[in-house]
Amino acid sequence: MSQTTQSKRITPRAEDYSRWYNDVVLEGRLADYSPVKGCMVIMPHGYAVWENMQRALDGMFKATGHRNAYFPLFIPKSFLAREAQHVEGFAKECAIVTHSRLRAVEQGGRTTLVPDPESKLEEELVIRPTSETIIYSMFAKWVQSYRDLPLLINQWANVVRWEMRTRLFLRTTEFLWQEGHTAHATTEEAEAAARQMLEVYATFAEQHMAMPVIRGLKSESERFAGAVRTYCIEALMQDGKALQAGTSHNLGQNFARVFELKYQTEDGREEYAWNTSWGVSTRLVGALVMTHGDDNGLVLPPRLAPLATVVVPIWRTEDMREKVLGAARDVARRLLGAGVSCHVDDRDTLTPGFKYHEWELAGVPLRIELGPKDLDRGEVVCVRRPDRAKESVPLGALETRVPALLEEIQQQLYRSALARREAATHEVDDYETFVRMLDEPGGFLLAHWCGSAECEARVKAETRATIRCLALDQPEEPGRCLVCGGSSPKRAHFARAY
Amino acid sequence: MSQTTQSKRITPRAEDYSRWYNDVVLEGRLADYSPVKGCMVIMPHGYAVWENMQRALDGMFKATGHRNAYFPLFIPKSFLAREAQHVEGFAKECAIVTHSRLRAVEQGGRTTLVPDPESKLEEELVIRPTSETIIYSMFAKWVQSYRDLPLLINQWANVVRWEMRTRLFLRTTEFLWQEGHTAHATTEEAEAAARQMLEVYATFAEQHMAMPVIRGLKSESERFAGAVRTYCIEALMQDGKALQAGTSHNLGQNFARVFELKYQTEDGREEYAWNTSWGVSTRLVGALVMTHGDDNGLVLPPRLAPLATVVVPIWRTEDMREKVLGAARDVARRLLGAGVSCHVDDRDTLTPGFKYHEWELAGVPLRIELGPKDLDRGEVVCVRRPDRAKESVPLGALETRVPALLEEIQQQLYRSALARREAATHEVDDYETFVRMLDEPGGFLLAHWCGSAECEARVKAETRATIRCLALDQPEEPGRCLVCGGSSPKRAHFARAY
Repeated sequence: MSQTTQSKRITPRAEDYSRWYNDVVLEGRLADYSPVKGCMVIMPHGYAVWENMQRALDGMFKATGHRNAYFPLFIPKSFLAREAQHVEGFAKECAIVTHSRLRAVEQGGRTTLVPDPESKLEEELVIRPTSETIIYSMFAKWVQSYRDLPLLINQWANVVRWEMRTRLFLRTTEFLWQEGHTAHATTEEAEAAARQMLEVYATFAEQHMAMPVIRGLKSESERFAGAVRTYCIEALMQDGKALQAGTSHNLGQNFARVFELKYQTEDGREEYAWNTSWGVSTRLVGALVMTHGDDNGLVLPPRLAPLATVVVPIWRTEDMREKVLGAARDVARRLLGAGVSCHVDDRDTLTPGFKYHEWELAGVPLRIELGPKDLDRGEVVCVRRPDRAKESVPLGALETRVPALLEEIQQQLYRSALARREAATHEVDDYETFVRMLDEPGGFLLAHWCGSAECEARVKAETRATIRCLALDQPEEPGRCLVCGGSSPKRAHFARAY
Repeated sequence: MSQTTQSKRITPRAEDYSRWYNDVVLEGRLADYSPVKGCMVIMPHGYAVWENMQRALDGMFKATGHRNAYFPLFIPKSFLAREAQHVEGFAKECAIVTHSRLRAVEQGGRTTLVPDPESKLEEELVIRPTSETIIYSMFAKWVQSYRDLPLLINQWANVVRWEMRTRLFLRTTEFLWQEGHTAHATTEEAEAAARQMLEVYATFAEQHMAMPVIRGLKSESERFAGAVRTYCIEALMQDGKALQAGTSHNLGQNFARVFELKYQTEDGREEYAWNTSWGVSTRLVGALVMTHGDDNGLVLPPRLAPLATVVVPIWRTEDMREKVLGAARDVARRLLGAGVSCHVDDRDTLTPGFKYHEWELAGVPLRIELGPKDLDRGEVVCVRRPDRAKESVPLGALETRVPALLEEIQQQLYRSALARREAATHEVDDYETFVRMLDEPGGFLLAHWCGSAECEARVKAETRATIRCLALDQPEEPGRCLVCGGSSPKRAHFARAY
């Protein structure tokens, strides 16, 4: 936005990781604070990243047979109350609409607006914190027979959860997300559907975000309010804290029962349907920042970067300027023709160094420098954002080498993140070491757990670490619970988390 | 959704236009009523149409330099109050959030949830009815200098206006829309921007929706609350009522002044910026239904149809079935390859006639019938949705003739709608005739108006007709006001409207 303000210094990660994150989000112009407590503004650069995420995910949802629809923002209070665990989970943090009109009144000599008592609603409405209740009440209307199943629906929407402590993208009162909701004829089918979408999320995280994730099952205490089983993908941030990046729930018949979502079977019986729901949110933008960003700002993986390449032309004299600018525009035209997004930074009043800094801050994966000497040699200099590695590319090879370089950056980012996670994952067998390692170096601690809620709660109360998940690919390995010494069939992923 | 329920009869337009509309929306599975008063559910077929509209519009916004962003759903009550006309326009129909928590209480022996008094908000929040206030408060933070202008932002979002009388798509408490918001250095630039987006809307309506529109200026009484000038596109529905399909506002400095949206000019002075805002909504889906639909259901223009073609294979014996189905799938594969969406309706238990009926109801522009005799002749029969005109197309010409047919249907729909509007537009010079013609035949009545709010209000009170707009291309033609006989420079477009 503002072209005139110099960007502030980015706090180095080693100095204060939390401030570094805020600096990168704000100075990288992904988001800004809003005048509404707990809500943020997603700025154009941040929204463009979200749009790219949406496009990729939406394609994957459609390829697996889901169709988009849209359900009301408002949920009648009584709907939320029907599923006991669900209301328990959401009633304490929801925005409640009570009136439909403001009225001007005189107060202390001046006019203020107050909710008009005459417009008080008969039944209060809750702004959706999630839409199971309203959606399954509609499904009950739409489904009659086994022929209507499976019903595979997705919604892109905003939701509101009244959070006390908010962080840009990671935890905001209002956020954008998608929520998939499906109904099936059998429990097996619902379970397979929940697992399928977990795999879709994991594939998206790894192949598009270049962010390795653990696919796992949540413990009972971390389960979604109203679910029978909650699957999740968990990622590890650079500061050694985990981040839940997506969840997929097998809801069993919990919602079907309370909303009378029934179907007639092929042999004429009446049965409740089986549901799944699954969601990812704008939180993923925060995850992206914390997975790849560095002390110079954002680092965006090419597949999600709004701008993949930027050409910075370099000149000293007016003569050179014309020649170099012409060549730069030609480079951009050719890359665009090859399907690579490209912008020429032709601003006259800024030095190349200043431009490098700015585009690094914005996370553009590949910078293309082009000066008179490069032109004479018939080449450009390509600089990779993650490690600033340079490479001269002959002009004739632009259309082949630049896409290949972007693909290399994408892979490089994934490999770095994976190596970092592997280096930060440790098996721990005694509680004392566990507590010490949580502080330093952090990361995923693989420890045995007997399965009891008590032991889990004790760890959380004493260390702020939680069981992030029981990894699906965790090998069987009998052991002794970290806390009580009871028997454990395999290790769980523990970590402090966002 | 439900595959098992037979669709109900569509009320013919001549019998009851209003019921016809509801029947087509419901039976065509565009939308459904929700359990929340005034809110609807947009079903997959309706949402797919909206997605196609979004894609086309979003491309046009980006091509004119706009970037998407996202601002909070909540607007502090005090923000709404700052611009006097704006609050006047919206305070009486808004959802107001007053609490952030529900609490279980015992009432008459059972537990109910009530808003927790301890969670009462310090300042009530209004669900955005439109976002001028919150967006320009952010612009004020982002804009410092003339170099930051123009600032060209668009938002895709849900908004809430507490409507008393709602109609599916046309008027709902919550609706989906886009709202563009721009800031400029001069009034001339803002005026040009408002006019540019009006033209974008008109182009979209005509070229994508095949819906002719009048581009015009609203009278003062119909102006957006807070605008200096409101432009609109107005369409005429088949029942002779007008529908406002989009608006573009020149906001002058009204919002800039109250939100301190200032910039430093090139010569160092401080000035308020000039704003525009513009929006279209899911109402357009309703406009599409009422522009092209007929007594058999929806008619979708090819450029917005989620499915452009459907192949209905016809067979009697099992032998034929395999052969015909194979050929049908081959047709679909080839059309998909040519960029034409296509579905093969291979359901075994339904007759071809039933299938024709169903796909006509859904508005699919082109039906492709394929039976053993057609196969022997090496051709398919293409049936246009609007007029059921049939044409045999040789299999070898599929990839050229089908796209051409779809383009013909698109043009045909526009021409029919334009001819209908022209036939329903009349010049009227005396009040008695005006009143009579409003009842029968309805349509646009071009009449002289002196420009006074009194005469306009009298017409509205006595006839329920309003000045839809002062058309931008209306020729100068001095005359006498329909009501008071005062002088008028040119005719205005009057109509009863949705």
